[in-house]
Amino acid sequence: MNTIQIYDTTLRDGTQSEELNLSTEDKLRIATKLDQLGVAYIEGGWPGSNPKDKRFFAEMQQYQLSTARLAAFGSTHAAKVSAENDANLLALIDSGASVLTIFGKTWDIHVTDALKITLERNLELIRDSLAFLRPHAKELFYDAEHFFDGYKKNADYAISCLGTALDSGADLLVLCDTNGGTLPEEIAAIMDAVRTRLPEARLGIHAHNDCELAVANSLAAVRHGAVQVQGTMNGYGERCGNANLCSIIANLELKMGYSCLPEGHLERLTDTSAFVAEVANLRCFKRQPYTGQSAFTHKGGVHVAAVRRNPRTYEHIEPELVGNKQRILLSDLAGQSNILFKAKQYGFELDKGDPFVLELLTELKNREDQGYEYSAAEASYELLVNRVLGRARNYFRLISFRIMDSVFTEGMEPFTEATVMLRVGGMIEHTAATGKGPVNAMDCALRKGLERFYPNLGEMRLLDFKVRVLTGSVREDGHGGTAAVVRVLIESGDQKSRWTTVGVSYNIIEASRQALEDSINYKLFKDDQKKLTQAIREI
Amino acid sequence: MNTIQIYDTTLRDGTQSEELNLSTEDKLRIATKLDQLGVAYIEGGWPGSNPKDKRFFAEMQQYQLSTARLAAFGSTHAAKVSAENDANLLALIDSGASVLTIFGKTWDIHVTDALKITLERNLELIRDSLAFLRPHAKELFYDAEHFFDGYKKNADYAISCLGTALDSGADLLVLCDTNGGTLPEEIAAIMDAVRTRLPEARLGIHAHNDCELAVANSLAAVRHGAVQVQGTMNGYGERCGNANLCSIIANLELKMGYSCLPEGHLERLTDTSAFVAEVANLRCFKRQPYTGQSAFTHKGGVHVAAVRRNPRTYEHIEPELVGNKQRILLSDLAGQSNILFKAKQYGFELDKGDPFVLELLTELKNREDQGYEYSAAEASYELLVNRVLGRARNYFRLISFRIMDSVFTEGMEPFTEATVMLRVGGMIEHTAATGKGPVNAMDCALRKGLERFYPNLGEMRLLDFKVRVLTGSVREDGHGGTAAVVRVLIESGDQKSRWTTVGVSYNIIEASRQALEDSINYKLFKDDQKKLTQAIREI
Repeated sequence: MNTIQIYDTTLRDGTQSEELNLSTEDKLRIATKLDQLGVAYIEGGWPGSNPKDKRFFAEMQQYQLSTARLAAFGSTHAAKVSAENDANLLALIDSGASVLTIFGKTWDIHVTDALKITLERNLELIRDSLAFLRPHAKELFYDAEHFFDGYKKNADYAISCLGTALDSGADLLVLCDTNGGTLPEEIAAIMDAVRTRLPEARLGIHAHNDCELAVANSLAAVRHGAVQVQGTMNGYGERCGNANLCSIIANLELKMGYSCLPEGHLERLTDTSAFVAEVANLRCFKRQPYTGQSAFTHKGGVHVAAVRRNPRTYEHIEPELVGNKQRILLSDLAGQSNILFKAKQYGFELDKGDPFVLELLTELKNREDQGYEYSAAEASYELLVNRVLGRARNYFRLISFRIMDSVFTEGMEPFTEATVMLRVGGMIEHTAATGKGPVNAMDCALRKGLERFYPNLGEMRLLDFKVRVLTGSVREDGHGGTAAVVRVLIESGDQKSRWTTVGVSYNIIEASRQALEDSINYKLFKDDQKKLTQAIREI
Repeated sequence: MNTIQIYDTTLRDGTQSEELNLSTEDKLRIATKLDQLGVAYIEGGWPGSNPKDKRFFAEMQQYQLSTARLAAFGSTHAAKVSAENDANLLALIDSGASVLTIFGKTWDIHVTDALKITLERNLELIRDSLAFLRPHAKELFYDAEHFFDGYKKNADYAISCLGTALDSGADLLVLCDTNGGTLPEEIAAIMDAVRTRLPEARLGIHAHNDCELAVANSLAAVRHGAVQVQGTMNGYGERCGNANLCSIIANLELKMGYSCLPEGHLERLTDTSAFVAEVANLRCFKRQPYTGQSAFTHKGGVHVAAVRRNPRTYEHIEPELVGNKQRILLSDLAGQSNILFKAKQYGFELDKGDPFVLELLTELKNREDQGYEYSAAEASYELLVNRVLGRARNYFRLISFRIMDSVFTEGMEPFTEATVMLRVGGMIEHTAATGKGPVNAMDCALRKGLERFYPNLGEMRLLDFKVRVLTGSVREDGHGGTAAVVRVLIESGDQKSRWTTVGVSYNIIEASRQALEDSINYKLFKDDQKKLTQAIREI
């Protein structure tokens, strides 16, 4: 099987993305994860351009990568100094990376107008930079910036840049579609032309997504002889992003018969994709091919019925191949068959026409009309199902509460206090707590009141808190934005699992209360279920 | 110039998206907007499948579309009834749409396993359905579901489905890659094969994005003879979405020399894309090619310098061609050149090395470290610049405030009250207001206190309110989710413009206060600037 080298530049070109800002610690975690995925190269940064990247390479010297080689990126040397006196090249050598990647100009107009040097001088920069670095690198790559645009304007000069790099010791020439404006058939034709003129060269492709064609362009290049593909996880990168390696790896391995990752590693793809988003503090793009949360999600009633019979009817691959999974959504397009399918997941075998199914369907539709969203809040849904079935009890009642945020003197941090009155069984608990903001204060007061009855709440942590304004309501409400209905999603966890609950109200405090109460009830319900299962087993 | 018909199915196939839920009113607004953009066809829904779509078509009978034709979608008739007794086909006729699009099976295994009928019977369904509808439709299209998968398994049967549709009156045959698993070279080869076997047929393409190739596949089909492209705005659709018409239209018109929209309408693309997202209450995908907020955004210092000299160095097209615009980001990669560029936009001509530039750079970096995000809050940034310059004054001081949320009896709606003490000039204003939730109450109290000093605040409205939890802080904070730092963005507007302000704190109330204060100060600052300009003109 032919192997294609995957060259990941999430940590360098990816961070040019508007949204992607990574600390050195973030970069180390991502590098480790990419190594576990099994990419061939990890481009860690541009040590000559900023101290953060320099620190990253220093730290990486203590890491032993298992599959990947670490690459450092830099430009050809500055025109006014020689290669051996160029700080940027010296920083590359200092980086300790075994792979060095040098980018240079190949588009004539960039040489004369941006660098303001002669075409001949640019060839010298390429030659001297690579020759100087050659002894210091296990592998030396040349990134031909703007190659396709340059080739279209002045093919001979673009080729002579490549030829110079090759003669000066480059192991591989990477053709870059820097502005992302090239079409797949142009990529194919130019790849063919380059191979004709430089038959001995090994070629790579570096594509950007400005025409939504970066994946297609990368695959076209592979079909026309590229042995390396550069890109980023989730397609992060400046403007519209770099070529998305998640899609490229899956397409090459599952559709085109190439090998990119070590045997069996493809199923780590979805987890890696989500991990990078999480570390970067970016919400995952749900519709992302292969690895997205929606990639194998079915909503329409007709499709759900067909997919339940045979997943291949509306799924092009088995989601497990890339570590993803099938999801069936609850929504207003959902019919009874979705409800039955979901109920089965929670262990209830129900029949169509069961009055319980109809009651649940009505309750769900009402709540979805109000803005509840159960596809992202499975714990609230599970509680709802069990309540309608009469199988889940309320572990406490919140009789009254008051939350106060005060600033007494201009410029002071607010003081926040919550009081809650709870009934647990026949007992009344009345307590108060301060907190960092109103939701945190309520959370602290609730736990303080409940932990003496339910010590297992001590294991539980709130992990994430999301607020969404339901804009639909803004439009209809004369009071404007701040009176809009908000949906709060709270993610909680203990040592064993994580769950998400939902609340909806025009008042963020009230919406948070609903989600907090569900979260606590779910923890207690789940622990009770476990005890029950345990007890039954012991009989 | 060759024309390609754009067939928009945002309102039908798009709503199969996990995230896209549209009311009838939403659908009417989007249809009007798509007509203004100038697509050839708007597929409004499946009137036989749900009452909401039926209502949409009834309403649409009162609209006069200027460019687009309205299409209604449905399936071939049910196997157990005849065409003239099929409720789904009758609903199509009732819809009043001038274009009817019928989908049917073309993959043999779907016929025998899903429909559970013979291959011959399926051909009858296609034939009878189309023949029955033919007299009722100005144009009649046949959507060949799973065509490419079907062709790969049983080419003869797939072709005979197409041939039957053609013979029964279909004006156009749409080849669907329903599961989105097909590669561009397969699309090309199969398009060629179909044209050889059915040379008289007009063909269309309907692609899905499961391999991140929907745009490439649509373009490949056009290159191989398709005259119609089906897709959705922003690529909405089930799983990974449909082919994104925004990218397809721009690529066809700007890169491939086809005409898709009326002359001059391409520049409406970005606005249409944002409008659909807004009505659907979905956040825009920033990195979306052509129409995304990041599509022509520059962050890296090197790129910014080059782009300021010549935009084409890092932009594949002029953003204005699709109604988008260039943005220069403030970020930790930004150097002085970005600050100078931004300052110029606000009318300050500053020099590199100006102590003001350095002060502003320091202030910005500090605030970005805390989580302030000025790329989405230009009004807060403009205020900051003017404050550092000593050109913006504070129109009021909030000396103290208190916000109280109370529920006295279980199950009651919370009662929210805000008190504020303000100093305006030498006067003290102490007042209180109730509101729908804490932020709304504070907003009401602030306006109540300020409107007697600044009556022009009466024109101002809060339009949107966004809360983002900065997850970075969640990880570092032992208290967990609800104590995380939050960033609040508030969008406000008056009759003339809209502006966005930002606040950051671990307390959502405090973050909202900052954004509200900025928003009010910005309105007053802007109106003062206008008066000043007016006064100068009158001298």
